[in-house]
Amino acid sequence: MKTTQQVKRVKFAIIGAGSAGLTAWSEIKKQTDDYVLIDSGPLGTTCARVGCMPSKALIHIAEHYQAWQGAAALGIELPAQPILHDDQVLKRVRRFRDRFTSGLIANTTDKLSEQHFISGRAVVYPNGEIHVDDHVIVAERIIVAVGSKPIVPDGWSANLGDLALTSDTIFELETLPKRLAVIGLGVIGLELGQALAYLGVEVMGFDAQGQVGGLQDPFCNEFMLEHVAKTFPVQINQQVVPLRVQNQVKITYQGGEWLGDKVLLTLGRRPNSDWRSEALQNLTVDPVTLQLGDLPIFVAGDASGFHGILHEANREGKTAAQNAIHYPVLTGSKPLTPTAIVFSDPQLCRVGVSFNELDPREIIIGSFDLNCNNGRAIVMDQDYGRIRLYADRTSGRLLGGELAMPSAEHLGHLLAWSVQTGLTLNEMSAMPFYHPVLEEAVQNVIDTMLDEFNAEQGLTKN
Amino acid sequence: MKTTQQVKRVKFAIIGAGSAGLTAWSEIKKQTDDYVLIDSGPLGTTCARVGCMPSKALIHIAEHYQAWQGAAALGIELPAQPILHDDQVLKRVRRFRDRFTSGLIANTTDKLSEQHFISGRAVVYPNGEIHVDDHVIVAERIIVAVGSKPIVPDGWSANLGDLALTSDTIFELETLPKRLAVIGLGVIGLELGQALAYLGVEVMGFDAQGQVGGLQDPFCNEFMLEHVAKTFPVQINQQVVPLRVQNQVKITYQGGEWLGDKVLLTLGRRPNSDWRSEALQNLTVDPVTLQLGDLPIFVAGDASGFHGILHEANREGKTAAQNAIHYPVLTGSKPLTPTAIVFSDPQLCRVGVSFNELDPREIIIGSFDLNCNNGRAIVMDQDYGRIRLYADRTSGRLLGGELAMPSAEHLGHLLAWSVQTGLTLNEMSAMPFYHPVLEEAVQNVIDTMLDEFNAEQGLTKN
Repeated sequence: MKTTQQVKRVKFAIIGAGSAGLTAWSEIKKQTDDYVLIDSGPLGTTCARVGCMPSKALIHIAEHYQAWQGAAALGIELPAQPILHDDQVLKRVRRFRDRFTSGLIANTTDKLSEQHFISGRAVVYPNGEIHVDDHVIVAERIIVAVGSKPIVPDGWSANLGDLALTSDTIFELETLPKRLAVIGLGVIGLELGQALAYLGVEVMGFDAQGQVGGLQDPFCNEFMLEHVAKTFPVQINQQVVPLRVQNQVKITYQGGEWLGDKVLLTLGRRPNSDWRSEALQNLTVDPVTLQLGDLPIFVAGDASGFHGILHEANREGKTAAQNAIHYPVLTGSKPLTPTAIVFSDPQLCRVGVSFNELDPREIIIGSFDLNCNNGRAIVMDQDYGRIRLYADRTSGRLLGGELAMPSAEHLGHLLAWSVQTGLTLNEMSAMPFYHPVLEEAVQNVIDTMLDEFNAEQGLTKN
Repeated sequence: MKTTQQVKRVKFAIIGAGSAGLTAWSEIKKQTDDYVLIDSGPLGTTCARVGCMPSKALIHIAEHYQAWQGAAALGIELPAQPILHDDQVLKRVRRFRDRFTSGLIANTTDKLSEQHFISGRAVVYPNGEIHVDDHVIVAERIIVAVGSKPIVPDGWSANLGDLALTSDTIFELETLPKRLAVIGLGVIGLELGQALAYLGVEVMGFDAQGQVGGLQDPFCNEFMLEHVAKTFPVQINQQVVPLRVQNQVKITYQGGEWLGDKVLLTLGRRPNSDWRSEALQNLTVDPVTLQLGDLPIFVAGDASGFHGILHEANREGKTAAQNAIHYPVLTGSKPLTPTAIVFSDPQLCRVGVSFNELDPREIIIGSFDLNCNNGRAIVMDQDYGRIRLYADRTSGRLLGGELAMPSAEHLGHLLAWSVQTGLTLNEMSAMPFYHPVLEEAVQNVIDTMLDEFNAEQGLTKN
C-alpha cells in the first residue's frame, strides 16, 4: 500500500460513470453518502458519446439525403441536385452528441464534490484497494462498470495510424472521406457503412463471415445481403488485413485489390479489462449476480461482456448496485427478452430465441416477403423486407424472430413484448391490427402459422 | 312480387362487395354454392377506392415534399426549391388506387359467374325479397354490407355543385385547387387538410367543435390544435355554411369571410340506408349479433354504423356470415380493443377506454411531452407531440390512452395490444425498451404512473 496519507476509505466504489455506472450510482446514493465514483474520462456514456446517439443523428441525415432520389417518382421535381455539406453534417452530429453528453454530465458527475468523484484510471485489487494514479481508495464493495472499446487487431493501429477509424473516432472527422473501406458488417459496420454510402462516400464492405447486422436467419440475411449490395459493394467470407501504402489504405482480397482514403474498423467491441490487477485476471463474472469470483466486486454493463446494449447495461447497473448494497445476500434480475435493433435501411430486429438456438422439430416457422402486397409499404415505396417468426409447436407461443423491414424498431417492440408476455399465435391473431399498417405483414405471418398450428393440433387429436 | 320469370331463389344473399361483404362472402362460399353477391358499384372497397389507401398515398408524397423545408438544418442544400407537379401527384395516387382496387376485383367479383354476381342497387323486404332493378331475388338469409357515404348537409350539393368535394371525389381532381376550405376536422379532414397544405394548397380549416382528428383528451387535443394551426389557419367552434358566389366558394364565419376555389366537406360518414324498404326503416341492428330486428338479416361493416373502420368491418363481415349460416343460433365476437389511428403530422392514436368514458377517481393518468428529451425524437427533428395514458387505480392495468406523436401508428399497436392483454403498469415497466427509440417516451409515462400506483398501494397498506 502507498503512503497512508493518500488512502481514502469508503463503503462503496463505483468505477466508471457510463450508463451502467451511473445507474448503479443512482441506486447507491439513495442509501448512503459513503461512496466514491471514479472515471477515467472522457465523461459521457458510450451511448451518447460515440454510440447510439451520434450514429442515429448521422443515419437520419443520410436517409433524408437519400430520399431525394425517390422524389421524381412522387411528382416532385428537383431543378438542381441537392448539395451535401459534409462539414455541416458532421458538425450537427457533434452538436447533438455534445447536447446529450453535456446534459448528462451536468446532471451527474458535475454535481459531485471532490469527496465523491475521482478522475483517473482505476486498478482493482482483491483486498478492496483501488489505485487511481497517486490515490489509493479502499472500498468494502466495488462496482466495476468501465465499459468496452472497439476491437482493433494487434499492429493495425501502428501500421495504419490516422487512416484507421473506429466508432470512437469517426465522428471527430471534419469532412467525410471519399473512399472508405468498412471491415466488419455487424451492427455498427452496417449502420455506418450504409449511412456513409447514402451520404456519397464510396464505401466498400468486407466481412470475415457473411452475416450482416447480426442477422442469423438465412431467410432474412440473404435478403439483407442483396439489399445492402445495391448501395455499396460487399465482399463476404474475406479475412482481410488493411495496409498503409503511402497515404492510402490498401486491402487485398480474393478477387481484387482496394485502395482508398480511410478504413473503418467495426469488428465488434471488447470489455475493458485494464482495471483488473494481476490477481483478478482470471476471475469470471457470474451472469446472474454479476459477482466477480467470490469477492464483493460486481461487474456491470459492457464491462461484464454479457450484452453490450444500453437497456441491459441499465439493468445490470441496478443489479450490481443492489448486490453491492445487500452483500453477501445476492440476487439477480432476469435478462429481458433479447431485443436487438439495427438502424439500417431497412431496419433489422432480432427478438427472443435466436435462429441458431432453435430445434426445427419443436417449432413452427412463419415467413413473409414485404414485396407481397402490404398496402402501407407500397404507398411509402418501402415494400422491401422480410419477416421470420418462430413459435413453439406444442404451446403455440411466440418464441422469437427476425425482421428486416422498415420500422423494425417499432414492430420489434411489439414482437418482443409478445414473447415476454408469452402470447400464443391464437392470442396474437386476435389482437387489433389497424389498416393500412406494416403490422398487417406480421398479422399475415401469424395467421399462416396459426393455420399450421391448428392443422397439427387437429391431426394430433385424431 | 314481379313476374316470376325473373325471380331467383338462393339460400344466402350478400349485398355489398366491399370489405365487410367480401369477408362475409369468403365465409359463405366455404359452405355452399347457393348464394348471390349483389353490388351497386363502383366495385372496390371504400378503403381501397376512396379511403385508407389513396389518402395514405397522398400523405406520403406530402410528407416527402414538406421535408425539404428541414433539409438546410441537416447540412443538405437544395439550390432550388423543389417543384411539385400536382397533376403527377394525383395521377400517382389514382395509379395506386387502381392497383389496389383492380387487384381486389380480379380476385373477387371478377371470378364470379352471372349466377353468383348481380350488379345493381338492392332494396330488401321483410319477406326475404331483394329487388335489384328488374330482378327479384328471394333469399333465406341476407347479409347487408352496403357501406357508408360522406355526410353532405341538405342543399349544399345543389348550391355548390362541383365546387364541393368529398373524399369520394377529391382524388378525381386533375390538379390541386389553389385555395381550399376544409369543413370538419375529424380524421379525414385533418389528414387531407394537412397533406394538401403541405403540398402548397392554401387551406383554411373549420370545425363546429374544437377537437381535431377525433382526439378527446384535452392535453393531446390542445397540442394538436396548436400544431395544426402552424400549417394552416383553423377556425374552431364555427358552424359555417359554404355558399357558391359566381365560381367561388364563400364562407362567412365569426370574425371574417373566406373566399376560395373549392370546399372539402369532411363532416363524417353516414351508413347507407337506401337498401331498407319501408317496412325495415325503423328496425335496429343488434351490436353483438348484427341481426336486424328479429329477421334473418345481418348488417355488417360501415352499414351497421358501429365502427366505420376497416379491421372492424372485417370482423363484422365474419360475424354476420357465421350468424347467417347458423341462424337461428346467433353468436357475436367481442369487438377488439378500440384502436383509431390518424395519419396526420404528428400521427394520432386513440386506444382502449376513451377520455370521456373515464371516471377520474378510478384512474391514474400519465402524461408526457415529447419536447422533454427523447433522444430518438431529437435526432429526427421530431421532438414534438404528447402522450396521455390511463390505468386502473386498483389493478394497475392499462385502460387506454391517446398519442399525438411521430410513429403513433406503431406505438398505438403496442398500447392496444397491452390493453387487450390486460398488462399492468408493473408488467409494462418490465418490458424491453430498446435505446434510442420513441418507445422510451412511453416507458417514461409508465414508470411515472407506476411510482404513483406503488405510492398509493403503500398508503393503502398503512
